Amino acid sequence: MKYYLGIDIGGTNLAVGLVDEHGRILHSDSMPARVPRPAEELCHDTALVCRKVLADYGITMEQVAAIGAGCPGLIHDGYVVAATNLVLRNAPVAALLEQELDRSVTLCNDADAAAYGEFTVSWDQKPDPFVAITLGTGVGGSIIIDGKIRAGFNGSGGEIGHTVIRAGGRKCPCGRTGCFERYCSGSSLERDTRAAMARNKESLMWELAGSAKNATAKTLFRAVEQGDPAAQRVLDYYVENLAVGVQNLIKLLQPEVLCIGGGVSYAGDALLRPLTEKLNGMVRRRNTLPVTMVTLARLKGEAGIIGAAMWGRRQQEGV
Amino acid sequence: MKYYLGIDIGGTNLAVGLVDEHGRILHSDSMPARVPRPAEELCHDTALVCRKVLADYGITMEQVAAIGAGCPGLIHDGYVVAATNLVLRNAPVAALLEQELDRSVTLCNDADAAAYGEFTVSWDQKPDPFVAITLGTGVGGSIIIDGKIRAGFNGSGGEIGHTVIRAGGRKCPCGRTGCFERYCSGSSLERDTRAAMARNKESLMWELAGSAKNATAKTLFRAVEQGDPAAQRVLDYYVENLAVGVQNLIKLLQPEVLCIGGGVSYAGDALLRPLTEKLNGMVRRRNTLPVTMVTLARLKGEAGIIGAAMWGRRQQEGV
Repeated sequence: MKYYLGIDIGGTNLAVGLVDEHGRILHSDSMPARVPRPAEELCHDTALVCRKVLADYGITMEQVAAIGAGCPGLIHDGYVVAATNLVLRNAPVAALLEQELDRSVTLCNDADAAAYGEFTVSWDQKPDPFVAITLGTGVGGSIIIDGKIRAGFNGSGGEIGHTVIRAGGRKCPCGRTGCFERYCSGSSLERDTRAAMARNKESLMWELAGSAKNATAKTLFRAVEQGDPAAQRVLDYYVENLAVGVQNLIKLLQPEVLCIGGGVSYAGDALLRPLTEKLNGMVRRRNTLPVTMVTLARLKGEAGIIGAAMWGRRQQEGV
Repeated sequence: MKYYLGIDIGGTNLAVGLVDEHGRILHSDSMPARVPRPAEELCHDTALVCRKVLADYGITMEQVAAIGAGCPGLIHDGYVVAATNLVLRNAPVAALLEQELDRSVTLCNDADAAAYGEFTVSWDQKPDPFVAITLGTGVGGSIIIDGKIRAGFNGSGGEIGHTVIRAGGRKCPCGRTGCFERYCSGSSLERDTRAAMARNKESLMWELAGSAKNATAKTLFRAVEQGDPAAQRVLDYYVENLAVGVQNLIKLLQPEVLCIGGGVSYAGDALLRPLTEKLNGMVRRRNTLPVTMVTLARLKGEAGIIGAAMWGRRQQEGV
C-alpha cells in the first residue's frame, strides 16, 4: 500500500487527507482557515493538520510517497500569485509547506485539483473535453483536453468565477462587475438567502435556520422543498445565473462532460433538475448535434484532497 | 505552383479567393450574399464566383489542388447544422458545393477558417494557446491549442459570440439575452451608430455619412477622430463590452495571443488603443504573471479565404 497526502487550503477550511494509490481517502481532518492571516501561519496550521492525520492513522511522514496541495487563486511555480479568497499575494506556499513538513510539495490551483481528482477517479472512459466547475467560497473552473489540464500559457486559466455574466452588475473584489462567482458561489447563495430572509419575515427559512446568521444553502434547499416562495425565488435567480455561466462554457468549449462540484452541488437533484430544465429551455432551436452531459461531482468535498494527492503523485512519481 | 480555392460564405458577402501554397491570394472576387434564401441558391451563386475567379485568373478547375469553404454557425460533417446569420438549418452545404463544382469541398466554421489562416500565415513562432475572435456580421471565435482547432466533442465550440456578458440585456435570435455579439458584432456597432445619430441630430456623423442608412463603423471612427461626443459615447460602450468579452476569454483560456479580426478590426489603433487601456484598467491588482498579447489580425478580410483554402489543403492533401 502506498500513501499520499492531499492538502486543500480553502477560504473556509484547511483540509488534509491521507489517500491510497486508488484515490481513496483513508483518513482526513481539517481546521478553520481563519483568513486573512499571513501565509506562514496558514502553512504552519496546515502542517499541524497533516501531522495529526498521520498520527491518528498511525503512520510516519517517511511512509508518505508524495504530497500535493491545492489553493484557490492564481498559482504559478509553487507561489500563490494572487488569491482574493485567501487574501494572499506572491506567497511562496509550496516552499513554506516544504519547510514545515521537510518534504517536497506540489502546489496547484484547488479547482484544478478537484477536477483532476474527479477526472482520474470517477471516469473510466475519460470524457474529452472534461470541464469542471466548483461552487464553493468562490467559483473555480478547470479545463481538461486530451487528458491534460489546460490552464493557458501562464498556468492561470480556467478562472470561470471571474468571467463576467452581468456587466455592470454586482461588484467583485477582482475589480470588475458582474463576475459569475458574485452570483453563483456558495457564499453568494448564502448571502442572497439571508437577504431574502431579511425581506421576507414570514419565510419558512426563519423557522428552519433559527436566525439569518445560521442560514446556509441547506436552509434554502430545505425551504424550497417545503414550498417556501421566498426561498424559491432565491433558487430561481441562482439557477438562472448558473445556467448562463454553464451555457457560456458549453458554447465556448463544447465539453463532453461538464461536472459541477463544491458545496452547493451537494443539494443533488434539487440543483441539477432545475438547472437542466433551464439549460434545455435556454436554446430556442434544437439541432441534431450531441449535447454536453451536465452532471454533479461524485467525489463531493473530497475531490480537492484526492486530486491534490494524485496530482502530487503524478508530478513527484510521474504516475 | 499549386492552386487552392478558399470560399468564405458570410451573412453579407460570398467571397472566393485563389490561393497559392504559401497562403497568398492570387485573385479574388465576391458578390452579395442576399440572405435569407435557400442553400441551393447560395451554393449556386458561390460556384459562379468560383468559376469567375478561375476564368479571370486564366486557369481551369482541374488545376486546383483542393477547395475549402467557411460558413458561420454550427458546422458538422459538411452540414450547416444551424446558422442564425445565414438563416440556414441542416443544409448540406459541402455536398451542394461539390455538386456545383464537381470537386471535393471541405466545410468548416468561418471563424475557425479565419483563425487557422491567421495562425498558419501570420505567426512563425506558433502561439499556444492561440485564440481568435472575428467582429463581423456576428462575432465568431476559435481556440487553437497545441496547433489544433479545439471545437469540442461535437465540433461546435468556440461560439464566443453567443456567450452571455449581460444576462437580461439585449435579445438575441439564439433565444438568450445579453449575448456578446449583440454588443460587439460589426452589425451591432452599425446599429448603435445609427441609433446615436437618431438621438443626436447635431452629430458630425450626419455630415460624414449623409444619412443614417449610409452610416457604418467607418463613419463612427472618423467622427471619433474629429472629436464628436455622440460618436465617442458609442465607441466607449462598444469598447467596454469588447473588453468584457476579451477579458472573459483571457480569464478562461489565458492564450499567449488573442487576435481580433473582422470588419471592425480594420479601424486599427483607433480600436486597439482604447481596448488595451480598458483591459489594463479592468484588473485592479497586478500580478507578476506574463499577460496575453492582444493584437489585431494581419490578414484582414482575407483570413477567412486563406484559412478555408489552407484547411481544405490540410484535409484533402494532409499538409
